[in-house]
Amino acid sequence: MIETQIRKTEIEPRITLVGAGPGDVELITIKGIKALQTADVVLYDALVNEELLEFAPATAVKVYVGKRSGDHTFSQENINKLMIDYAINYGHVVRLKGGDPFVFGRGYEEIDFAASYSIQATVIPGISSSIGVPGLQHIPVTHRGLSESFWVVTGTTSDGKISNDLYEAARTNATIVVLMGIHKLAEITEIFKKEGKNRLPVAVIQSGSTENEKVAVGIIDTIVELVEEKQISSPALIVIGEVVSLHPAFQPIKEFYEIIADEFRREI
Amino acid sequence: MIETQIRKTEIEPRITLVGAGPGDVELITIKGIKALQTADVVLYDALVNEELLEFAPATAVKVYVGKRSGDHTFSQENINKLMIDYAINYGHVVRLKGGDPFVFGRGYEEIDFAASYSIQATVIPGISSSIGVPGLQHIPVTHRGLSESFWVVTGTTSDGKISNDLYEAARTNATIVVLMGIHKLAEITEIFKKEGKNRLPVAVIQSGSTENEKVAVGIIDTIVELVEEKQISSPALIVIGEVVSLHPAFQPIKEFYEIIADEFRREI
Repeated sequence: MIETQIRKTEIEPRITLVGAGPGDVELITIKGIKALQTADVVLYDALVNEELLEFAPATAVKVYVGKRSGDHTFSQENINKLMIDYAINYGHVVRLKGGDPFVFGRGYEEIDFAASYSIQATVIPGISSSIGVPGLQHIPVTHRGLSESFWVVTGTTSDGKISNDLYEAARTNATIVVLMGIHKLAEITEIFKKEGKNRLPVAVIQSGSTENEKVAVGIIDTIVELVEEKQISSPALIVIGEVVSLHPAFQPIKEFYEIIADEFRREI
Repeated sequence: MIETQIRKTEIEPRITLVGAGPGDVELITIKGIKALQTADVVLYDALVNEELLEFAPATAVKVYVGKRSGDHTFSQENINKLMIDYAINYGHVVRLKGGDPFVFGRGYEEIDFAASYSIQATVIPGISSSIGVPGLQHIPVTHRGLSESFWVVTGTTSDGKISNDLYEAARTNATIVVLMGIHKLAEITEIFKKEGKNRLPVAVIQSGSTENEKVAVGIIDTIVELVEEKQISSPALIVIGEVVSLHPAFQPIKEFYEIIADEFRREI
């Protein structure tokens, strides 16, 4: 009891939100590693590469707070409270989150909660899978002549629906990246079909940057079948737009449609 | 001459595109550092932190190819050719680019050019300033209840105009991040005014993540004046959307409008 009190007087509670990147352990930043090296506690999510925990001191407490955990469910409220408890009792809490903390990561809720306890919170950005994962597949989110912008949308909003923003996005020329949308892929393709974009190139990438990476490249009309064939599942992202035509796997698709178009011309 | 020939036979030309991140030297990835450590040549851009060059071997050739250079102008064509020449004559070329290579970085043009010479090109993503720079200011690009998506648009297209996508973006609820748009800030605010979004929160951040960082936080109606007052200039990005209201500097603005609204109510 006395020991605990003495320990507490030495403790300076602080929280660092660290973006762990898309999965490859080497896609974290130097700054992220440095934060881990001084961690007293690491609270880490489901999509974080657990090898990163090795950068934290052996004595650091490592707590898995992935919401997908089978036995436990950690609500955002639970995580927030745990983070504060650990900071007060242990000192430096590193909150290690997949991708970037602010891309659908609910990172702001965490720093806001910390602020309500007057605990200093720092943010270290991470490679967002929305940009990095297509990039590793040599799909550029922007490319002269093909795309002057990219729009990153969640496939699953807080009420479980497809974001209205996706309906808007389907009407534009932006490259569209949908995170957490794989379970709604059929619905999403319907949105694009209604805009007459049946032949717009699409890629679906599962576990990008890791050894479990899987990729399907097709068009709006074919992607659902391709994803089923390749047994691609969560976690996966969807990239929709002309930039996907730059992926090497798109070349045969292009040729196929060129042949069809030629035959059609001969017939008429 | 003979020596050169002998050397050439040993050379395996290869190119690695590395995203250097927004400016802070520690916001590069571990993978990026590892690539630099094995570089024979580093070709680096204007927005890259030059301290990163210290990670490359002392013997590596370091070439500045920033298009903003006063004495030289390096066109994309020049850079492409230089990259190939160096790869063939020296081996491993690291093409070090600000932010992420595929976010308005013309990275795909470079890997495509390399492919035309059958030279293997690898891509290592970087922290894009579009996400990381607002994040370091505690402005989340997405936040429950405020934004379900973010749209990253160039302020300057290849023909020097504002992208059409920005006109579309102004009509949506997405968080909008405009890169390379600071010189067109007045024009950009006009687009939002036409949509009746005069009070939409806006932040302009210069040299994010570096010691030269400057920030202006306001609304569509006031941001041009604020940016002039604070003498904010290129390189800078613009964040437009309700998420900007979460920035601490926005609180007094909110209170100001609440007082105005109260007075208005009393008068009527």
